[in-house]
Amino acid sequence: MAREPVMNVAELSAFLDEVFPQVRGQMIIEAVGPMRARVRMPVDESRLRPGGTVSGPSMFTLADCAYYVATLAMIGREALTVTTSLTINFLAKPPSADLVCEARILRLGRALSVGEATIWSDGRADGPVAHAVVTYAIPPRPAP
Amino acid sequence: MAREPVMNVAELSAFLDEVFPQVRGQMIIEAVGPMRARVRMPVDESRLRPGGTVSGPSMFTLADCAYYVATLAMIGREALTVTTSLTINFLAKPPSADLVCEARILRLGRALSVGEATIWSDGRADGPVAHAVVTYAIPPRPAP
Amino acid sequence: MAREPVMNVAELSAFLDEVFPQVRGQMIIEAVGPMRARVRMPVDESRLRPGGTVSGPSMFTLADCAYYVATLAMIGREALTVTTSLTINFLAKPPSADLVCEARILRLGRALSVGEATIWSDGRADGPVAHAVVTYAIPPRPAP
Amino acid sequence: MAREPVMNVAELSAFLDEVFPQVRGQMIIEAVGPMRARVRMPVDESRLRPGGTVSGPSMFTLADCAYYVATLAMIGREALTVTTSLTINFLAKPPSADLVCEARILRLGRALSVGEATIWSDGRADGPVAHAVVTYAIPPRPAP
Repeated sequence: MAREPVMNVAELSAFLDEVFPQVRGQMIIEAVGPMRARVRMPVDESRLRPGGTVSGPSMFTLADCAYYVATLAMIGREALTVTTSLTINFLAKPPSADLVCEARILRLGRALSVGEATIWSDGRADGPVAHAVVTYAIPPRPAP
Repeated sequence: MAREPVMNVAELSAFLDEVFPQVRGQMIIEAVGPMRARVRMPVDESRLRPGGTVSGPSMFTLADCAYYVATLAMIGREALTVTTSLTINFLAKPPSADLVCEARILRLGRALSVGEATIWSDGRADGPVAHAVVTYAIPPRPAP
Repeated sequence: MAREPVMNVAELSAFLDEVFPQVRGQMIIEAVGPMRARVRMPVDESRLRPGGTVSGPSMFTLADCAYYVATLAMIGREALTVTTSLTINFLAKPPSADLVCEARILRLGRALSVGEATIWSDGRADGPVAHAVVTYAIPPRPAP
Repeated sequence: MAREPVMNVAELSAFLDEVFPQVRGQMIIEAVGPMRARVRMPVDESRLRPGGTVSGPSMFTLADCAYYVATLAMIGREALTVTTSLTINFLAKPPSADLVCEARILRLGRALSVGEATIWSDGRADGPVAHAVVTYAIPPRPAP
């Protein structure tokens, strides 16, 4: 199994815009590497909750998206790769600042990709604000 | 500890509109009962993913909201009650139809509310489309 | 897909003794039904933690086993059906009494069985002591 | 809050033997560091399942114990620190070899410790065999 990415940042960004036009501009792919990806979510008013903190659904969306990007980077264009489960722990209330998510694949099998996505508030040094464990199901593909 | 709801559907709906104006009209509280609530999410284009299925973040938002409503119904107006963790399993691709979520509290302590939220596609009889386990932290309150 | 059990309590008990001899006598299958099973774990000294409460690993083992039984009851003898993930919430400290677990399948697909297992302390009426969400992978089988 | 461990390997090992005599010899604390611990579980026959793989409950117990050690190392002797939730993903079937678990605290608050525990099969280089996210509740302590 290839352990180097088969898609780069530009290819992944174009693919994401194509299959999820509704998140265009909301998720910026910053880097991909072997079994890894980093995605930034710019935070504006629409993402905030009472008290000026970023909403839980926004963090869920970021973790889910970053993990999707990490997986696609390794397996290639498979739009129908879908989340089967996600466990998220909210660790600290993020202030009103961009969120940055590091996704990391722990196990990439033929049918499942399992790993984690850790979310940081940009510029904050005292640890992550959320952590997710994600499982994606990969559709069956013809043998290579 | 009171085991009957202390807020009714009208009071909860008004409170939700007040603290989360951004979801106004997107979540309809249908019923509350002891340790339970039912919330409907009307599904339109903006909620759909490629293939005509409802997006994962939409289901996360519904499960999270319904569980918040079930908890507030029991403890009263506590806007700062926040999600600390949520585990969601996506069980089947929901077609383009309203989603209905049944939230049920398993344990309501002084500091934590732990329970589940099961999501059904309206009109579909072959089991739920998603299931979540949710933990909410309840802010400290003066002793009664 | 059959929605009635294909194995009964006696058959499941014999199968469990055969494939997991190390838990013989520790897990008593009390009932199976469509997409459901109930398993009892007698509690003795070896299961207790400081303070006289049942240990977390014991509750994990019970939830895992009860869900395995519920799945096997529906799909038949498949010893290599394995847990792929389990999320457990400990809700209350169980006193020194038997534990009873109700497992319920939410979605039974060809490759995965996803559902929940709720653990009660026998004789205690104030809600469950633990709750788990379980995913089992079912090995590929020849088409019927 | 202190970010250096307040207990060392010898102190933690003695404490574990004292409060959990039933796991004596089954868990070897190898190292502790800031917000981290490494614990080894020697694997013998009693830990194996059909097919020669280590059982799920054994891996649960190791993850839970390693995370307990990482937390105690930071907060000191608090036997009543208890697991409130644990999500474990089984990533690969471990062969019959020792398991090594790396526990890492993501957020250490006054009331909760949240983090992860990753389990490796000793000598195997192709990634972890299991991964857990763990939450421990810390009992209230007098202000320092």
